[in-house]
Amino acid sequence: MATREDFAIATEPVPPLRDGEIEIDTKFVSLDPAMRGWMSEGKSYVAPVGLGDVMRAYAAGHVAASRHADFREGDAVVGVFGVQSRPVVDGARALKVDTRQAPLERWIGGLGMPGWTAYFGLLEVGQPKAGETLVVSAASGAVGSVVGQIGKIKGLRVVGIAGGAEKCQYLTGELGFDAAVDYKAGNLAGDLKAACPAGIDVYFENVGGEILDAVLAQMNLFGRIAVCGLISGYNATEQPPGPKNLRAVLVNRLRMQGLIVFDWAARYPEAIATLGAWHAEGRLKLREDVRDGGIDAYPDVLNLLYTGGNFGKLVLRI
Amino acid sequence: MATREDFAIATEPVPPLRDGEIEIDTKFVSLDPAMRGWMSEGKSYVAPVGLGDVMRAYAAGHVAASRHADFREGDAVVGVFGVQSRPVVDGARALKVDTRQAPLERWIGGLGMPGWTAYFGLLEVGQPKAGETLVVSAASGAVGSVVGQIGKIKGLRVVGIAGGAEKCQYLTGELGFDAAVDYKAGNLAGDLKAACPAGIDVYFENVGGEILDAVLAQMNLFGRIAVCGLISGYNATEQPPGPKNLRAVLVNRLRMQGLIVFDWAARYPEAIATLGAWHAEGRLKLREDVRDGGIDAYPDVLNLLYTGGNFGKLVLRI
Repeated sequence: MATREDFAIATEPVPPLRDGEIEIDTKFVSLDPAMRGWMSEGKSYVAPVGLGDVMRAYAAGHVAASRHADFREGDAVVGVFGVQSRPVVDGARALKVDTRQAPLERWIGGLGMPGWTAYFGLLEVGQPKAGETLVVSAASGAVGSVVGQIGKIKGLRVVGIAGGAEKCQYLTGELGFDAAVDYKAGNLAGDLKAACPAGIDVYFENVGGEILDAVLAQMNLFGRIAVCGLISGYNATEQPPGPKNLRAVLVNRLRMQGLIVFDWAARYPEAIATLGAWHAEGRLKLREDVRDGGIDAYPDVLNLLYTGGNFGKLVLRI
Repeated sequence: MATREDFAIATEPVPPLRDGEIEIDTKFVSLDPAMRGWMSEGKSYVAPVGLGDVMRAYAAGHVAASRHADFREGDAVVGVFGVQSRPVVDGARALKVDTRQAPLERWIGGLGMPGWTAYFGLLEVGQPKAGETLVVSAASGAVGSVVGQIGKIKGLRVVGIAGGAEKCQYLTGELGFDAAVDYKAGNLAGDLKAACPAGIDVYFENVGGEILDAVLAQMNLFGRIAVCGLISGYNATEQPPGPKNLRAVLVNRLRMQGLIVFDWAARYPEAIATLGAWHAEGRLKLREDVRDGGIDAYPDVLNLLYTGGNFGKLVLRI
C-alpha cells in the first residue's frame, strides 16, 4: 500500500501560461485503482509516474485562465492532469463538460472514463446477448455499477459481487441488479452458484484472485471474460498466484481478454452521448463517494480503493 | 500418473454385428494428452470414461466385417473407438482414409485430429498475420509440429519450445522453425527473449505452468493465446497454481481463448484437404513415434506424453 511517506506535498508558483495552455482550478481529483499501477516500475499501458513527478490523476475543475481559443474562464473541464490544485496544461488535454446535465464530480465518474470503460468493456469485449447471465466484480464501484446497469438495459440477468450487506443491498435495491453476492460472507462459490442457476456467460473482471477462480469454475461454454482490473493484486510485492481454474478456459472454450479504455478513444463521444441519455432517462444511477481533506488526504483516500472502504465512485474534493 | 494397476486387460468375444455396424481390426491406437483428462471426474468437454468402460481412444484400422453400406472389408478407417483390438461401432463413427496418400498411422497424427486441431486453433483462434512472431509449446509433438509448419507457410517467424537438444534440432533443422527454445536448459525466459527479439504476437499453448508464465511476460500488445492444452497440470492431484503474469492479459490487451477441435467438425474436410495438399507438396513434414507392445503396453506408453518421452506423434501398434 502507498503511505503518506511515499508522497511529498509541494507548493510552487503557478508558471506563466504559454500559448495554447490553460490553468485549471481543480475541484475534484479522481481516485482510480489504476493509480497504484502507475506508481510501479515496469512495462504497462502507460509510462509510470517518475520519482519526483506530480502524481497523475484524472481530475475535474474550472478554467482559471486560458491562452487557448476553445476555453474561457469558468469553463468546466475534465482530463488526465494531476493531484494538483492549479495544473497548467495544453488545452488539447482538457475536455469541456456540461454541468447542467450532471454535477462536475460525475464527469470523472460514471459519465467519464469509468463509465466509458464499462460501456466499451462490456459491449465490445464482453459481447453480451439478451438472456445471458452477467457477473461483475467490484460491482458497487465506479466501473462495476455502470457495467451492471448496462447489462440490465441490454436484457441480461445481472449478478454483482461486492463486499458487505450495504453494498449488496444497493445493487439489488437501487440499481436493479438481479442478485448480489457478498464476497465477505464466506461462501463465495455457493452464493455465486445460487445467484447464477444457469451458469455465467459474461464476466466483467475488476478484482482477480479468488474471485476470478470462483467465477471460472462456473463459466458456461463459450463464455467471455473482460479483464478490466485485477485490484486484488495491485499492492502485492510479489506477483500473486494466478487462477487455478485456468483449465476452464480450455474445456469451456472461454475467451479472456484485457481491455484499456484508451483503445476506444475515437469512440468516446458515442459513450458520452449514450451514457448521458440513459442517465437523463433515469436508467443509469450514479453515486459518488466524495471525501474531503484536499491534497493532503490523497494517500489515505487512495487506499480506500484497495480495502473496499469506498462506496461509489471515490473522489477527493480539492 | 496413470499406472498399470488403474487398468484391466479384458478379453471377451466380439459381439455379433447389428445393422449399420462395422467391426474394426485395430492397427494403431493414438496416445493423446487429453486421455488423462478423460480419466478424471468432473465437468469437461466430453463425459469422463466410466469405471469399467473401455478406455476411449482415437484409433486406426481396417474394416474386418461390415453391415454398413458405406464400408467394406479391408477399408482403412479412423475414429474415436477405444484401446481395443476389435471394436464394433456404428459406421457413422468411422471415417475412411486413403493409405495411398499417407500411411495409416499418419491419419491419427498430423493428417488427423491433431493436425485439424493445429489448423483451426492457429488460424481461427490465433489469427496470425504474416510477419508476426508465433511461439508454440510442445513444439515437436503431434499438434505443435503442425502449428509451427503452418505458421511458416503463413509467413510468420516461428519459435518452438521443446525439451532437449535433439527435439530442438529437429524443429530448426527439419521442420524449418526459425528458432527453438529448450525448456530443460534452465534459461527459459532469457532463451525465449533471444529467440523473439520483437516479442510474441501469437502463442499456441499446449503446456501451461511455468512456460505460460514465461511467454505471458513477453507477449506484445493485442497478442493472442490459443489454449489447446495444459499438459503440465494433467496429472496434478490438486489444481496447480495459475499464471502469475495474468496482469499481462490486462496491460497488453491479450486475448486468451480455449479451443477444442470438435467445434470445427463441420469444417474437417477443409482441414483434411489443405493439410493433405501441403503434405503432398513436402511443405508439411510429419513424424510418428510408433511403439510396440500392443494393448498391454498402453499405460506405460501413455505416460511418455507427460514426461516428454515421446518424439513425434505417439502411437501404439496393436
